[in-house]
Amino acid sequence: MLNLQTKTEHFTNPLYLESGRILEPYDIVYETYGELNEAKDNVIVVCHALTGSHHAAGTYEGDNKHGWWDGLIGQGKAIDTDRFFVICANVIGSCFGSTGPMSAHYPYNEPYRYKFPVVSILDMVKAQRILFDRLGIHEVHAIIGGSMGGMQALAFGVFFPNFAKKIIAMATTHATQAWAIAFNKVAQEAILKDPEFKNGYYDPKSIQENGLSGMAIGRMAGHISFLSPQSMERKFGREYKRTDGLFELFGKFQVESYLEYNGYNFTKWFDPLSYLYITKAINIHDLSRGFDSLEEALDKIVSELYLVGFEKDFLFLPSEMEHIATTMRACGKENVDYVEIQSDYGHDAFLVEIDKIDQYVRDALC
Amino acid sequence: MLNLQTKTEHFTNPLYLESGRILEPYDIVYETYGELNEAKDNVIVVCHALTGSHHAAGTYEGDNKHGWWDGLIGQGKAIDTDRFFVICANVIGSCFGSTGPMSAHYPYNEPYRYKFPVVSILDMVKAQRILFDRLGIHEVHAIIGGSMGGMQALAFGVFFPNFAKKIIAMATTHATQAWAIAFNKVAQEAILKDPEFKNGYYDPKSIQENGLSGMAIGRMAGHISFLSPQSMERKFGREYKRTDGLFELFGKFQVESYLEYNGYNFTKWFDPLSYLYITKAINIHDLSRGFDSLEEALDKIVSELYLVGFEKDFLFLPSEMEHIATTMRACGKENVDYVEIQSDYGHDAFLVEIDKIDQYVRDALC
Repeated sequence: MLNLQTKTEHFTNPLYLESGRILEPYDIVYETYGELNEAKDNVIVVCHALTGSHHAAGTYEGDNKHGWWDGLIGQGKAIDTDRFFVICANVIGSCFGSTGPMSAHYPYNEPYRYKFPVVSILDMVKAQRILFDRLGIHEVHAIIGGSMGGMQALAFGVFFPNFAKKIIAMATTHATQAWAIAFNKVAQEAILKDPEFKNGYYDPKSIQENGLSGMAIGRMAGHISFLSPQSMERKFGREYKRTDGLFELFGKFQVESYLEYNGYNFTKWFDPLSYLYITKAINIHDLSRGFDSLEEALDKIVSELYLVGFEKDFLFLPSEMEHIATTMRACGKENVDYVEIQSDYGHDAFLVEIDKIDQYVRDALC
Repeated sequence: MLNLQTKTEHFTNPLYLESGRILEPYDIVYETYGELNEAKDNVIVVCHALTGSHHAAGTYEGDNKHGWWDGLIGQGKAIDTDRFFVICANVIGSCFGSTGPMSAHYPYNEPYRYKFPVVSILDMVKAQRILFDRLGIHEVHAIIGGSMGGMQALAFGVFFPNFAKKIIAMATTHATQAWAIAFNKVAQEAILKDPEFKNGYYDPKSIQENGLSGMAIGRMAGHISFLSPQSMERKFGREYKRTDGLFELFGKFQVESYLEYNGYNFTKWFDPLSYLYITKAINIHDLSRGFDSLEEALDKIVSELYLVGFEKDFLFLPSEMEHIATTMRACGKENVDYVEIQSDYGHDAFLVEIDKIDQYVRDALC
């Protein structure tokens, strides 16, 4: 059975961040599925992406929205909750319950806003490691994630080498490249320049109610980077709204309606400061930071590493993941497997092409 | 010699637009290089892209900025001004002298703004055809253009079949696809939602002086679409500004500085309403409009058609141009050549990879 449980842990010890700053106190909200066995050797950690959350599978009572990886996690599914105890924690910096820029800045009752420290992928991972420690989990069967979730999975492998037996990282990179940083820049700039953002001193309720066009515009750019020319062509083609005239300046193609709807809808459920902080964490992601080279960093990995790239992923190119595999092999490491999956879906493939990744994940977790 | 001349023609007869509306009166500003021979058979028409202008080659007195295709046009260059008389006209809807949304709306002294009609690629081409008629030029040796300039070149071929002996279209498409429309959408939305745009009732001087962040953000998205992951990696890598701390929220990667600089600079020399109108023209570009099929449209072309796609062009994919060639050949037409040029530069390749297109253009013009 799925046995979905949502819990929050509160930590009073400081979290020492890569920047040299500390986060203290902090909360981590997380979700679990399945049951922890007595030997505590059936744990799988799932790491979420930029705008994801700890709600990875199942539905909440009275809600029909499935978790973001529901196709992969559940009874009899690739991440089988009859066998595994699955944990997914909301990353620090996010806006779904773990401490982020809009959390109260202890001891004040005011949100941090810009006083929130920049966190890194390693900081996110460290915070999760501390959570797992508190839960009495000192080793896990596997860590799996896509996009920013894949960055976390890789960071676990490099910085906590004996923690996970297996690591599956999809649609991700060893270090964020200029192209992805550029997409984030468009979104960041659009948020910052929106007067309703009020230089970070916005009223979150007002944004949830009225939307924030800057974040909507940024999300539109994001959607481009999540898709591919091919998937957009198949999904929308050149279809035009029937009610609009072709020569109306504001007449719309279906792809424009799609971007508008999803862009503005996004501002109802995500926080703009969290968006700035998490994209910053993604931009500065570089597995080799603190090492002399990527080789040296990857050499730390002792887990079995499974890498999945998607052919038409234009955000984190499959070649970036393949580079991890070839670098490791060139250093004589054999604990790595790389597969490139044929898909037109672009970056989103790790979320939507469940059929194509299902068997690979099953085999990797065996 | 280059013999650069800039002129403006004024037209009082109405220009009948594809939309059913008319433009009356209107101006077209254009530039010429070289000299028209007596037989008037040495004319080459150059068509510009979205934010291009009639200033395609040479420099103005007291200015050191070269025209946008200066590497290709000039004495002894591929488009040799010792041999050819080259004309490049600013498209209607633009903001460099030809009639556009900020031109006075006759008989009033106020700009059109939103009263300006939506123009299409065909309308741009028709206006140029009328200009050439006035200049006594009823046939030309060749028409050449890239991106939106390539759309115009193709439209000349379909709608004025006996006008050009040769047509060279680069980095363009027979019909704008959803992916390109999506990039334009980000820019349009960013412009429209900027309060300084004042719903189209902005003061152009104030924008030129203070910039328009919405248009800057749109241009940043544009720059992504003009480049490629590979060219960005080579150009910027993960270089970070030396003066900025990695963990400063607003610390910048070089690629971010580049986008910011070019984005904001753009707002000093381009008009936001023109941007909305020209991107609309690009979005609705479809060579097959008014025909039963693309085959039927392409069947009209009697010019020798030379198509150049660029390997890493993610805005107008080489496959879109190859599709034109294969469609024509499938209809038994042999007046088409397609070449895909290897380049990492993305869409911008047609502007920067002069060395790689030089010989092809020379041969095509022979």
